[in-house]
Amino acid sequence: MTAVRETSLPVRPDLTGLEPYGAPQLDVPVLLNVNENPHPPSAQVVADLAAAVAEAAPGLNRYPDREFLDLRADLADYLRVESGATLRPEQIWAANGSNEVMLHLLQAFGGPGRTALSFAPTYSMYPEYARDTMTGWVAGRREDDFTLDPDHAVAQLTEHRPSVVLLASPNNPTGTALPLSTIEAVAEAARTTGPEGADGAPTASVVVVDEAYAEFRREGTPSALELLDRYPHLAVSRTMSKAFGLAGARVGYLAAAPALVDVLRVVRLPYHLSAVTQAVARAALRHRGELMAQVAELRAERDRTVTWLRGHGLTVADSDANFVLFGPVEDRERVWRGLLDQGVLIRVVGPPGWLRVSIGTAAEMAAFRSALEEVLGL
Amino acid sequence: MTAVRETSLPVRPDLTGLEPYGAPQLDVPVLLNVNENPHPPSAQVVADLAAAVAEAAPGLNRYPDREFLDLRADLADYLRVESGATLRPEQIWAANGSNEVMLHLLQAFGGPGRTALSFAPTYSMYPEYARDTMTGWVAGRREDDFTLDPDHAVAQLTEHRPSVVLLASPNNPTGTALPLSTIEAVAEAARTTGPEGADGAPTASVVVVDEAYAEFRREGTPSALELLDRYPHLAVSRTMSKAFGLAGARVGYLAAAPALVDVLRVVRLPYHLSAVTQAVARAALRHRGELMAQVAELRAERDRTVTWLRGHGLTVADSDANFVLFGPVEDRERVWRGLLDQGVLIRVVGPPGWLRVSIGTAAEMAAFRSALEEVLGL
Repeated sequence: MTAVRETSLPVRPDLTGLEPYGAPQLDVPVLLNVNENPHPPSAQVVADLAAAVAEAAPGLNRYPDREFLDLRADLADYLRVESGATLRPEQIWAANGSNEVMLHLLQAFGGPGRTALSFAPTYSMYPEYARDTMTGWVAGRREDDFTLDPDHAVAQLTEHRPSVVLLASPNNPTGTALPLSTIEAVAEAARTTGPEGADGAPTASVVVVDEAYAEFRREGTPSALELLDRYPHLAVSRTMSKAFGLAGARVGYLAAAPALVDVLRVVRLPYHLSAVTQAVARAALRHRGELMAQVAELRAERDRTVTWLRGHGLTVADSDANFVLFGPVEDRERVWRGLLDQGVLIRVVGPPGWLRVSIGTAAEMAAFRSALEEVLGL
Repeated sequence: MTAVRETSLPVRPDLTGLEPYGAPQLDVPVLLNVNENPHPPSAQVVADLAAAVAEAAPGLNRYPDREFLDLRADLADYLRVESGATLRPEQIWAANGSNEVMLHLLQAFGGPGRTALSFAPTYSMYPEYARDTMTGWVAGRREDDFTLDPDHAVAQLTEHRPSVVLLASPNNPTGTALPLSTIEAVAEAARTTGPEGADGAPTASVVVVDEAYAEFRREGTPSALELLDRYPHLAVSRTMSKAFGLAGARVGYLAAAPALVDVLRVVRLPYHLSAVTQAVARAALRHRGELMAQVAELRAERDRTVTWLRGHGLTVADSDANFVLFGPVEDRERVWRGLLDQGVLIRVVGPPGWLRVSIGTAAEMAAFRSALEEVLGL
C-alpha cells in the first residue's frame, strides 16, 4: 500500500490534521474516566437481553421497523414513571447513542450559515457535532461556580441568533444542574431568537436540554421534561448509557413536540436503529426497577465522594451526576498520571486545575481516595 | 400540544416539506420490494447470535471498542474467502448499515462547495446522502441498457471535479454490474479530478464502488476489491443486509487503503457501533458457509426469474443482484397495485415503465409469476 501517499485524498479542509475523538481506552483495574456505570448487567438482565435477541433474530433478514413505535412507547412510559411527564410515543425519538440524537438535531436545524450555541465549560462533543454538520459554533460562558447567568444566556441568544442551543443539565464535566428558571428564561427568549424563516419572520431557537445524567440528580432537582408542554421548540435528551448501565448498547433518545420529532425523521438514515438494538433496549427497560436501585446506590457514593473531597480541602462542584469535578490541583497532568500509576484512571477535563472522577463501586472509590491521598499527600 | 404550531421551528431550508425516506412497510404475504433475503436465520444461527449477545452483555455497562479491530479482522477474512482480496483489518471500516458508511464517506470528503457524482438510474438514497452532508449532487447517465459509457463517465469527472464518485455495481435498481474496465477507467481519471487541495494541486476523486449485492454476482463477474491495491482513492462497500440476510442487524462495511479509512475514523461519532452489533456481526460471520449456500439458491432463482420474464416477452436487465428490473409495462402503478391486490409487494422504481422485483423463495416467486400473469394477461 505504498501508493497511499502518491495520490492526495480530497479530505474536507476543516478535517485536515484532526485525530478521532475519544478518551484513551486503557486497560487498568479502576476505570473512572468516562462516566460509565460500574455495575455490569445482572445475570437475570443478561439472560433477558439474550432472550430478547433470540426472539428478534428470526426476523433479522427483514429491515427493522423504521418508526420503532413500540420502543418509543416504552421510553415514554419510562419517562412517565421516572419524571412524571406524560408523553406520547410520537414525542419520543431514539438513535444509536445520544450523540446520534444530537447529530440528527443539528442535521435538522443546523447547517452552513447557522449557529449552535452552548455555554462553556460543557460537553466537549458539542463542537464536534457542529463541525460534523457544518454548523457554526459559539460558546458563551458559565460563571466561576459553573452556574449559568440567565441574562448572559439570553443576551447570547439575542446576539448570535442560534438555530440550536445546547444546555447540558446536569452539565458535563461540571456535574452541575440548571434550575428550571434558567431553562425557562432561555426557552422563553428562544421563541424568536432563531434565524429568519422563509417569510422573513424570526423562527425559534431549538433549545436542547441534554439530561444524559438526569437519573442521578439529587432529590428536589427537577427535569426539563416538565417544561415540554409549554415549549414546542424544546427537546430533552436522555440516554440508556448511564443510569441503565448500557453504554455498550448505544441507545440515546429525546422527548419533544411531535412536530419537532417529525423533522428528525426526515434527516435520520432509514433503518438507523437495528432490530437488535430495539429488542435490547426494550428488554432493559423491563428491568428498570433493578437498574434504578443501582442508581440510588451510585448517588449515595457520589455524595460520599463529594463530602470526602471537601473534607480534604478540595473544591468540588455540586454534582447531580455520576461524576464529580474537583480542584484546584497545581499540575493536573501529574495528578492524573500519579493516579494511573496506582491503577486508577480518571479524566483531565474542565478548566485548568480541575479533574473529573466518575463514580464507581464503593471499592473503586476507596481505591481512588487512597490513590489521591498518596498523590496529593493529603 | 396545540402550541406546536404557534412557534416556528428553524428547519433547514432545504428540508422544508420533505417526507422521511423509505419504501412503504406493508404487511402482505409476499414481500419482494426492498431486496431482503427471504431466508430467516436458521435456528442454529439464531442460537449463536443470542449466545454471542449473552457473552457480550456483561460488559455492556462499558462503552464499546471504538476501533472494533476484531470485527474488522473478521470482515477482512470473509472478503479474502469471498473475493480473494488480501486485506488488513486497518483497511476495513464498518457502521450501522452501508448507508452510515456512505454518510461517513460524504462527511469526510464531501460538504458545502463540493460535489458527489453518480450515474442514473441508480440507488435513490445517494442524493439523500449528499443532501444530508450539504454536498452538491450531479447525476450523469447510464445508457438505455443501463451500462455506463467510460468516456461519458470520465468526461463527467473532468467537468464536475467531484470529491466523491458513487458507482453501484451491481447497480440498484437495474441489477447490472460494471465491468472492471469501466471502474478502472473511472479510477484512473479520478487520480486528479478532485477539488483543489490546500497546495492548489488537484486532489483525487474518491471512487466508491457500492457492492451491496456483490455476493449475488454471476460467475465470472469480478469484484472491485481486486483493484484496491492500485487505487488509494478507491473504496469498495459491502453489507451484511443482503447475502447474510441480516438487514435488521444493520451492518455495512467497506474496504479501502488505511489512509482513507483513517479519515472516516475522524468523522464517525465515537462508539457508533454498539458492542451488541459487533457481537452479532462476528457470530453471523462464523456461519458464512451456511449463509452463502442460500446465496447460491437465490442466484439460481434469480436466473429462473429472468428466463421466465424474457420468455413472456418482457425486457429484463441482466442481473448480478438479488432483484430483477423488468419492463416495459404501460401503467406500472396499475401493475404494482394489481400485484399487491394478490398479496405480492414489489417496487415502483427505475425509469418509467420499469418495475423491480426482489428474489424471494421458490414459493414466493411462483406467487409473483402467477400474479403477474393475471395482471398482465400473459
